Amino acid sequence: MNLFEPWFIAPISALISILMGLYLYHYINKQDSGTKKMQEISSAIREGANAFLRREYTILAVFVFAVAILLGIFLPEPIWTSNNLTQNLSRSIAYIFGAFCSASAGFFGMDVATRANAKAANGAREGLNKAFTIGFRGGAVMGLSVVGFSLLGLSVVYAITRDVQVVLAFSFGASALALFAKAGGGIYTKTADISADLVGKVELGIPEDDPRNPAVIADNVGDNVGDVAGMGADLADSYIASIVAVMILGQILGQVEIPLILAGLGAIASLIGVAIVRVGKKGNPGRALNMGTYLTCVIFAVVAYFMLSYLEVDLRIWGATLVGLIAGVIIGITSDYYTSIDRMPVIKTAETCKSGTALNIITGFSYGLHSVFPPLVGIGIAAAVAYFLCDPIGEGYAVFGVGMAAMGMLSIVGMIVASDAYGPIVDNAKGVAEQAGLGEEVIAITDKLDAAGNTAKAITKGFAIGAAGLTVLALLAAFKQIAEQVLREMYNNPSLTVDFNLMNPVVLLGAFIGLAIPPVFSAMLMLGVGKNAHRMIAEIRRQFREIPGLKEGKEGVKPDYARCVDIATVGALKELLPASILAIVATLAVGFLGGIEALGGYLAGSIFSGLLFALLMSNAGGLWDNAKKYIEAGAFGGKGSEAHKAAVVGDTVGDPFKDTAGPSLNTLICVMSLVASLFAALIAQNNLLKLLGLA
Amino acid sequence: MNLFEPWFIAPISALISILMGLYLYHYINKQDSGTKKMQEISSAIREGANAFLRREYTILAVFVFAVAILLGIFLPEPIWTSNNLTQNLSRSIAYIFGAFCSASAGFFGMDVATRANAKAANGAREGLNKAFTIGFRGGAVMGLSVVGFSLLGLSVVYAITRDVQVVLAFSFGASALALFAKAGGGIYTKTADISADLVGKVELGIPEDDPRNPAVIADNVGDNVGDVAGMGADLADSYIASIVAVMILGQILGQVEIPLILAGLGAIASLIGVAIVRVGKKGNPGRALNMGTYLTCVIFAVVAYFMLSYLEVDLRIWGATLVGLIAGVIIGITSDYYTSIDRMPVIKTAETCKSGTALNIITGFSYGLHSVFPPLVGIGIAAAVAYFLCDPIGEGYAVFGVGMAAMGMLSIVGMIVASDAYGPIVDNAKGVAEQAGLGEEVIAITDKLDAAGNTAKAITKGFAIGAAGLTVLALLAAFKQIAEQVLREMYNNPSLTVDFNLMNPVVLLGAFIGLAIPPVFSAMLMLGVGKNAHRMIAEIRRQFREIPGLKEGKEGVKPDYARCVDIATVGALKELLPASILAIVATLAVGFLGGIEALGGYLAGSIFSGLLFALLMSNAGGLWDNAKKYIEAGAFGGKGSEAHKAAVVGDTVGDPFKDTAGPSLNTLICVMSLVASLFAALIAQNNLLKLLGLA
Repeated sequence: MNLFEPWFIAPISALISILMGLYLYHYINKQDSGTKKMQEISSAIREGANAFLRREYTILAVFVFAVAILLGIFLPEPIWTSNNLTQNLSRSIAYIFGAFCSASAGFFGMDVATRANAKAANGAREGLNKAFTIGFRGGAVMGLSVVGFSLLGLSVVYAITRDVQVVLAFSFGASALALFAKAGGGIYTKTADISADLVGKVELGIPEDDPRNPAVIADNVGDNVGDVAGMGADLADSYIASIVAVMILGQILGQVEIPLILAGLGAIASLIGVAIVRVGKKGNPGRALNMGTYLTCVIFAVVAYFMLSYLEVDLRIWGATLVGLIAGVIIGITSDYYTSIDRMPVIKTAETCKSGTALNIITGFSYGLHSVFPPLVGIGIAAAVAYFLCDPIGEGYAVFGVGMAAMGMLSIVGMIVASDAYGPIVDNAKGVAEQAGLGEEVIAITDKLDAAGNTAKAITKGFAIGAAGLTVLALLAAFKQIAEQVLREMYNNPSLTVDFNLMNPVVLLGAFIGLAIPPVFSAMLMLGVGKNAHRMIAEIRRQFREIPGLKEGKEGVKPDYARCVDIATVGALKELLPASILAIVATLAVGFLGGIEALGGYLAGSIFSGLLFALLMSNAGGLWDNAKKYIEAGAFGGKGSEAHKAAVVGDTVGDPFKDTAGPSLNTLICVMSLVASLFAALIAQNNLLKLLGLA
Repeated sequence: MNLFEPWFIAPISALISILMGLYLYHYINKQDSGTKKMQEISSAIREGANAFLRREYTILAVFVFAVAILLGIFLPEPIWTSNNLTQNLSRSIAYIFGAFCSASAGFFGMDVATRANAKAANGAREGLNKAFTIGFRGGAVMGLSVVGFSLLGLSVVYAITRDVQVVLAFSFGASALALFAKAGGGIYTKTADISADLVGKVELGIPEDDPRNPAVIADNVGDNVGDVAGMGADLADSYIASIVAVMILGQILGQVEIPLILAGLGAIASLIGVAIVRVGKKGNPGRALNMGTYLTCVIFAVVAYFMLSYLEVDLRIWGATLVGLIAGVIIGITSDYYTSIDRMPVIKTAETCKSGTALNIITGFSYGLHSVFPPLVGIGIAAAVAYFLCDPIGEGYAVFGVGMAAMGMLSIVGMIVASDAYGPIVDNAKGVAEQAGLGEEVIAITDKLDAAGNTAKAITKGFAIGAAGLTVLALLAAFKQIAEQVLREMYNNPSLTVDFNLMNPVVLLGAFIGLAIPPVFSAMLMLGVGKNAHRMIAEIRRQFREIPGLKEGKEGVKPDYARCVDIATVGALKELLPASILAIVATLAVGFLGGIEALGGYLAGSIFSGLLFALLMSNAGGLWDNAKKYIEAGAFGGKGSEAHKAAVVGDTVGDPFKDTAGPSLNTLICVMSLVASLFAALIAQNNLLKLLGLA
């Protein structure tokens, strides 16, 4: 072993990321949290968020340990046939460690986000510049922790075991936790949001974030547990999974460490990107964020070029990462068209609100359907280009190229998460400013910061969607490769290949089942929101009815915020487990009943419908949200008009679409692919179809 | 040639079907249409419906001839290279003939349906029995014309040319027309329905089918052009396509006429089924319809068994048709769970209406997502069982078996359409009874008849969905086979096979594009409804505002019904063409750019998302409809309550889901598959990827 191997750049840059994250955390903590009222609000949010996470993690710990024991018993071989128990143990530990890293990144990022909100609001009293810096650095802590914990953890597992299969178990741990964080956070946040809006805005006509509303703290907590912790976990999971997928694909090519090297370079590029983002006194914060992202892309492309040249790696591989970067930006910009407040789809949808709620729903949903086209075709083209670009290098390099495109998108995940986590922080800052009555001017600044978050979101969302799509394709290829290796040994036939041929009825049946999983999963989450909101609405109405003076805003009268936080928390946890377990159990069931080909079809089917519904729901939801904002800005009768009421219903329908079901689907298909890859060897050897002699 | 070939049973039973249809038509015409007022209403509906169809067919004639010319120029070979122009001409003519047969079945069936409504309403004055007989026989005319025209036309084309490729052109003609009928009718009917409901029920609070509403006639017309003509064309198109697909698959097995024989037997079974359906004085009409369907299944299974034994065909093929029949019933019953008024999903959704519109939408949509699971898995299992059942017969029989399962479902299409078309007839009868003020007792009978239509719909819908799914799978196999034959000749390699392997990036890119087509198509149709409804709502409001005494229901004051019919007609035609042309052009573009493998992936992708969205939208729409009815029956505050208002919005959202976009998707994927098969040979020889040397 060399004293210094090139891939050490990964853990080193991960460490630097964590250190820089700590520095920024320290910076945030030093800032003033403003008036007593602001501090009160901020700590109420933080306490609520922490309470939620603590409760969630406590329950998940049980689940994680249960799964870890199962993994230890069955993988890589059932312990009663295994002659190397360390192998089994290593997978269990790696799995727990992966879950731990993912949870830590989420907790750390969310803690700082809930501290930064009041500080950013207070910063807004000094001006845009100060507030922006606090908001962005808060987000950067999240971004840097995602990169740091993920990459460091992964490197440690690899350094110790040098076994990609064990790294896969690590990735599964991180993804399983991300799924819970996303789904649980998504149910929580929308329970609170819908309930607060329905009773507050629609029934009583009081403004958003009004402190009289018993659900207002739960709503603010929700923005953090759903958007910050959940989104961070989501990107962390794609990030780790893409690295692992490419490591597996690179294994037979002797290129197992290339993805680690590129991830390290991406981390460095993100560090630089985060450091240089700033906005002048009269500057445009949205532009500053996007410029930061573009610059990070360029820096990454340049350093990757030199590094790969230096390592004498074929530059077609560099080309594939570039394809990923470019596709991410293009997908972001085209998707943005459908949800932007100044574009035709939003304006047309807002206009239909004049004719009532139903037409608003139909129109927004239709544009949502439309919006799946550019990204789906974009992902398909990016995959095909990367494939054909790397095909000439040699056998096996074509799919390796597809993986590299995914990695290209995800390499700069630090910067992406930083820009994205900025959004909920400044959104919360706005809420704090409003609740603390900081005056028009300050609220206007927080408004401007909030709008910038939405601008940045377009690009970051493009990366998240594109990366998820390419990552699961790479995972599908990795799954195929693992299965192929096992079957070749089993049948002692080195030229055996596994194909997922759609004219094979086993593949097709698998595909039909796989197609159905994401819709059913989404339905379970959204019904969970519905059930939960039902309980919470009753509670809010009760408080307004029973607490004297609350509705009128009498001095000193406060609603029981904690009760609402509690209802949302308990409900979310109750609803998330069945859906998540379904996804894992269904995957194993298809595999052990139908074998490798059925499972391949199943994964492909789930990728298809998963991407379809993720795009549809995220975009339709975003569109309704902005249609409402468009009307609130004065169009078609403005606030309080009939059109506005219709728009509010659309926004409420869109909430669980865009914040609960839609974004969880990326993680879902990732988890399903990882489970399949982990169990591929076991399934290839033991499945019903093989027993029946049909495969 | 034998003087009598076994497949002659197809044209003979088709002729008998037409004769029986004519007899029933005569029976209907003899019935009394009731009071002058009823006759007026009925003829207003018939005139509106005929006006729509005439206008639609005039425009479509231009389109059909244009496509016919293109087909003649390019198929089977471009005329500048062809040495047999009769070949080219025969395809053009077959295409036009197919469109003509489909249009005739639609026109004939709709004409009788619009006559039967008032007669059934009048029959209700004599009692349930009489009214049921008129309603069912009206539907039977439609069912028998669908079978008669389709099967006779197909037999004639085959008898003259003995060329399955020409029969394929016939099928394309029928499907293209069905697509227009479905999409155009769907836009029309929902424009009228939504507009009538929004202004009438929601804004003014007047009852459904109130004669003061200017859109009431357009609404009744819509039920006929959308549900009767459109649905008939839809099943006719699956019916023909499944026969053709199996003929193609049977060609290399020397079994080209088996599908014709089975279709003939199915027609006979349907004739018997139609003849024996009746309901006693105290009988249950819903049960009578379902018993008729079950009995037809049994009769078909028995005669098919004896015929295939007699012809010494392997009975595994009979088994495959049986799999189709059984799957149809099972899929129907399981889907029914999600939309039945007395089941948990509808009741739960109705309950959420208490918490407002948004929760109703979210909950109904979620159950819609849930509902895709049983039928998707059912189609997958039916295909796999049929495949493995027929696989032992010999090479090529496995996919032939899948086709036979589709044929099994569709063989009894006569009975299925009869039960299904019964629904809109009695629905209209109820409308006529209400508008003509026939009294509580008569209306109660029409109500009971209407409910029976919904009961029957569950089974018939299961057949329609299952059959569409299996048919397009058979068409995909047929497409593969045609392409394979061409490529084998081209490369002079008789063992060459075409595969749609998901790990091939060309297939995958095709699949991603194909996935996006059904959502985009649905969006175009639904936006069309939205735009159209927008215009119509303005017109209805104008009439209520400007016609003095209309709102108050002053004696002698009548709204301008014709104006509303006209707006819906013109708008529907304007909106349907772009979407339909997109589907055809995109298919050809993918084929000529990406070649056979891209096109195979594309078809598979479109099948996946087409079935997904067809199921989701049909079921969510049906569920909202029944949730509203559940509340109207008195639950959760009943009519006029806040919950009812929320339920009405849900119903309105569901309308274009279940009656415009959802059901058009079956036809869409069928048309796409047929276009691909027709052009398969040309595409295999000429495509960009081949030119670039990448395939």
